[in-house]
Amino acid sequence: MDFSSKLLEKAVEEMSQLPGIGKRTALRLVLHLLKQPEEQTLHLSKALIDLKTEVNFCKNCHNVSDHTICEICANANRDKAIVCVVEDVRDVMAIENTSQYKGVYHVLGGKISPMDGIGPSQLNIESLVQKVRAKEVDEIIFALSSTMEGDTTNFYIYRQIEGEGVVTSTIARGIGVGDELEYADEVTLGRSILHRIPFENSLKNS
Amino acid sequence: MDFSSKLLEKAVEEMSQLPGIGKRTALRLVLHLLKQPEEQTLHLSKALIDLKTEVNFCKNCHNVSDHTICEICANANRDKAIVCVVEDVRDVMAIENTSQYKGVYHVLGGKISPMDGIGPSQLNIESLVQKVRAKEVDEIIFALSSTMEGDTTNFYIYRQIEGEGVVTSTIARGIGVGDELEYADEVTLGRSILHRIPFENSLKNS
Repeated sequence: MDFSSKLLEKAVEEMSQLPGIGKRTALRLVLHLLKQPEEQTLHLSKALIDLKTEVNFCKNCHNVSDHTICEICANANRDKAIVCVVEDVRDVMAIENTSQYKGVYHVLGGKISPMDGIGPSQLNIESLVQKVRAKEVDEIIFALSSTMEGDTTNFYIYRQIEGEGVVTSTIARGIGVGDELEYADEVTLGRSILHRIPFENSLKNS
Repeated sequence: MDFSSKLLEKAVEEMSQLPGIGKRTALRLVLHLLKQPEEQTLHLSKALIDLKTEVNFCKNCHNVSDHTICEICANANRDKAIVCVVEDVRDVMAIENTSQYKGVYHVLGGKISPMDGIGPSQLNIESLVQKVRAKEVDEIIFALSSTMEGDTTNFYIYRQIEGEGVVTSTIARGIGVGDELEYADEVTLGRSILHRIPFENSLKNS
């Protein structure tokens, strides 16, 4: 692209560093900001810088938080002995939205992915293993996405904590509530049948 | 969405003000920045603020520029008597990319759109009319998108400058080069036939 302004070019370049934002989209976003009052750009920039410089990660579960211990970990009503292992903050938000979970979380910050150069040491795995070894945990629930990387990460952690007397489980995979069987992929449908549950149990939550 | 951090919520809120960026996408972008080195966020914020506070709009054509007169208007080789009327900077960049145009531009900054509350006075129309009345211009080329708003804007400007002895034209509409006739919409194909050009002329640019 041939920019008429270096300032514009620089802004587009920085904006297009964001994932999924190409040069064209970046240009559209930047030109939008140019048309808006100056406050909008200042507020956006300030919010991003504030977040980056002031945000904390919970010492306990590594969730994004304004304090050194996040609200979930600080909540006396949450069962600290049940730990749900998730990839990032979005998964915490998604599970919290269900209002079905009363334990705490452990945010890994990613999945083991040799292709992307992410090994176990770059993730928050060691602190989870320490929690288990310190006998603070009764149950670990693996809630990573069921991809090759997710399964690898689950298994890596499992090997580290097996024999420590902790119960491990993974979230149920199956046909989504309200979904038609005929449109489900075979793997999901297969797991749905394999891991069927007693009918009475299915009546508990609705 | 239920955020674990006010800072995160604020950043997502500001980011989702951008057009086409929903809350989920904003969260993804913001979490990406959180994972990256602090410099990336600082550079992005600085680039946006610099652009907003320091950028100029060319006094002559209203294009985005680092100087008071843009490079195109300042170029002695460009024909100042031919003015191509476009909506915004992206259109200038698109036409410049073709290397087929040797005149100058006039950037309106939008189209007349009563639905969005944009009237003629919010656009750079007056300065264009002044240029024409000062007899600085021989030809006006309308290159707005062919929507209801584009056509309205063209016609509004046309009414202001008719009788001033300026030649007016609009860019040709037709089937794209390399496109199959069978997939073209009827309006475009219809115009293509209606505004057919002498065969010898079609051989000039290839």
